[in-house]
Amino acid sequence: MEEKLMGKLASEPLNFESFFSEKALQMKASEIRELLKLVETSDVISLAGGLPAPETFPVEIIKKIAQEVLTEHADKALQYGTTKGFTPLRLALAKWMEKRYGIPMSKVEIMMVAGSQQALDLIGRVFINPGDVVVVEAPTYLAALNAFKYYEPEFVSIPMDHDGMRIDFLEEKLEELKREGKRVKFVYTVSTFQNPMGVTMSLDRRKRLIELAREYDFLIVEDSPYSELRYSGEPIPPIKHFDDEGRVIYLGTFSKILAPGFRLGWVSAHPHFIRKMEIAKQAVDLCANTLAQVIAWKYVEAGYLDEHIPKIIEFYKPRRDAMLEALEEFMPEGVEWTKPDGGMFVWVTLPEGIDTKLMMEKAVAKGVAYVPGEAFFAHRDVKNTLRLNFTYVPEDTIREGVKRLAEVIEEEIKALKK
Amino acid sequence: MEEKLMGKLASEPLNFESFFSEKALQMKASEIRELLKLVETSDVISLAGGLPAPETFPVEIIKKIAQEVLTEHADKALQYGTTKGFTPLRLALAKWMEKRYGIPMSKVEIMMVAGSQQALDLIGRVFINPGDVVVVEAPTYLAALNAFKYYEPEFVSIPMDHDGMRIDFLEEKLEELKREGKRVKFVYTVSTFQNPMGVTMSLDRRKRLIELAREYDFLIVEDSPYSELRYSGEPIPPIKHFDDEGRVIYLGTFSKILAPGFRLGWVSAHPHFIRKMEIAKQAVDLCANTLAQVIAWKYVEAGYLDEHIPKIIEFYKPRRDAMLEALEEFMPEGVEWTKPDGGMFVWVTLPEGIDTKLMMEKAVAKGVAYVPGEAFFAHRDVKNTLRLNFTYVPEDTIREGVKRLAEVIEEEIKALKK
Repeated sequence: MEEKLMGKLASEPLNFESFFSEKALQMKASEIRELLKLVETSDVISLAGGLPAPETFPVEIIKKIAQEVLTEHADKALQYGTTKGFTPLRLALAKWMEKRYGIPMSKVEIMMVAGSQQALDLIGRVFINPGDVVVVEAPTYLAALNAFKYYEPEFVSIPMDHDGMRIDFLEEKLEELKREGKRVKFVYTVSTFQNPMGVTMSLDRRKRLIELAREYDFLIVEDSPYSELRYSGEPIPPIKHFDDEGRVIYLGTFSKILAPGFRLGWVSAHPHFIRKMEIAKQAVDLCANTLAQVIAWKYVEAGYLDEHIPKIIEFYKPRRDAMLEALEEFMPEGVEWTKPDGGMFVWVTLPEGIDTKLMMEKAVAKGVAYVPGEAFFAHRDVKNTLRLNFTYVPEDTIREGVKRLAEVIEEEIKALKK
Repeated sequence: MEEKLMGKLASEPLNFESFFSEKALQMKASEIRELLKLVETSDVISLAGGLPAPETFPVEIIKKIAQEVLTEHADKALQYGTTKGFTPLRLALAKWMEKRYGIPMSKVEIMMVAGSQQALDLIGRVFINPGDVVVVEAPTYLAALNAFKYYEPEFVSIPMDHDGMRIDFLEEKLEELKREGKRVKFVYTVSTFQNPMGVTMSLDRRKRLIELAREYDFLIVEDSPYSELRYSGEPIPPIKHFDDEGRVIYLGTFSKILAPGFRLGWVSAHPHFIRKMEIAKQAVDLCANTLAQVIAWKYVEAGYLDEHIPKIIEFYKPRRDAMLEALEEFMPEGVEWTKPDGGMFVWVTLPEGIDTKLMMEKAVAKGVAYVPGEAFFAHRDVKNTLRLNFTYVPEDTIREGVKRLAEVIEEEIKALKK
């Protein structure tokens, strides 16, 4: 009798939910990923992704370096590494950043991470107490919101325009927060060719942001995955370049200048901050993958990186141009978009009243996909925007995709006016 | 005047500490790593590390596969991957685990992670609320304590003997906790060739542990990085093999059967648990490194893994034997140690009253290093133990190292008796 009862109990499934932490119960899968699942299975043109084109991966160089590294440095390349990362690579990157961006090697330390995404998580872990104010751009990089959110900050959103974050609005907000007795922990910005907007923070705003950081005593997290992908206009130094005090934590990545499959990024910051992030990283994964680090070292050190960047630019520029031309040609009146000098994305704003999340189904029916803008806003309060990617599909396809999208939007605008 | 003042203020260094989160302020660097820094610079024989021998890395196989993969699959191997991992690899591992361990493919899902260390962090994130009871072995894997600690569990330590965790003590403890109205979230065990002790949980205890998990409604985290490294005795199925309900979360890794530099491990668990860990992983690093995953896929799929394991065993067995022989030959009376059938470590217990952390300096002066046992105990309440590694240095060196250590211990014992 008791045995039978046990048998019956045993056949009941586990109460899985009862084991999860409270924070885990709140974790939700990215709705965008869910949305995009329906795209993958059809012949829809996807302008939604954020993937680099595989044609830009320096496959032959990687093959060559991989052989060299596995012949000459296998002991190191296949062994555990230090948490901070492979020293020759850290050194090569520090030199490269000094030469390229005028960030003095003597003022920073570099730690290797599993893509900048890991740096975002570590920054959350090391800096955010629940309730701390974190300033983000509106819109901002969605996975940064996702990374920070776990640590329960209070997000403050600052609007953007074609010159990046509206520093004047930031200043007002800082004053307001100060009056309320609240301190900003850090401002997070994708300073150059922002994801999702494609815009770049102007030189004046960069300088002013640093001044404000000193005045109001906050840090700046400068996430810069796209800065090397410039197709037009003049380079602007990173905010980190103007940082005398060590307030800027700069994030770089190999994802767009080598290959995302390496999952390799770096943090360049004051040694005090790096030290704490290093201790945090020890607990989460011990060290970044060593083989990738040793390959990346050769890639930077032997000059392949500098040789390869122009080729990536050459490959993407026609795609950027194709997208801007198609938007110009097909988009109905009332639609606005950014004209990025670089990066991977164009940001489209539709007339108020159109909800791009609701529009998605119609777009997919017409054979085109994009990312609805809502999820890029910390407060999810903007419904009429969307992000287009121009790096993954060829020019013809971009043109056709934009054309299809324009048709959908035109119908939406008509419906609005009824 | 005001400008001068500003100048003065600016030259004061940032108050770095003021930016850290409360949890970050509590993070401390591993004292062992600090201790071991003094070892690296001298000609001390280190039996302290936990590194596999680079001679066991299948360098030629990796070279060959890397070329194949970069020739045939570069698009995939260098691109972002899904968070759960490269599907062909997940499938190959599921098949391999079914064949090797009798864990039915149909009952589990597999997610790839950046080494099992990342799995430990994700488990903390997904399961531990502050104050939740987590049962650990005493001693246990130190970096697991480190990973879980961030999530603020209440650790309950269960003593070990030569057959692994004392399940009878666990049962008593479970009763006691139940009376106090406390629930155990999970039991963490390194079930086979445990780190640091080298011992293996017996078959009977494995079965009883599963019964208790059902009876007291907790999960089991079975961390199994060493199970393939068996030099003597008969294989025992993993606890996961006896798991009908999905209570066991099994962690595997390529670190000891391919190379740690890949930073590649896996979690095999009920799809419900994997789903939540997948969402958590999305926020921390998007996905595991793809190139390593595609190489690992070929390594498993083409049978290289099964071919290579016997070679690793052949390489390590003489080292294990050399260490056990040297201990037998040189250790003074009153010293005890484990006789592992596999893995990487031997655990040494000295007479009560000797503090191995304090003894470390003398050992280094004599030219040998080990890891003091204290940090492997969640409650840091045992001072007279130490861990020795036998995989990294050759037999002669192991012998000489143990001899030197025995001399130090002999002196300590003499001093005790005074």
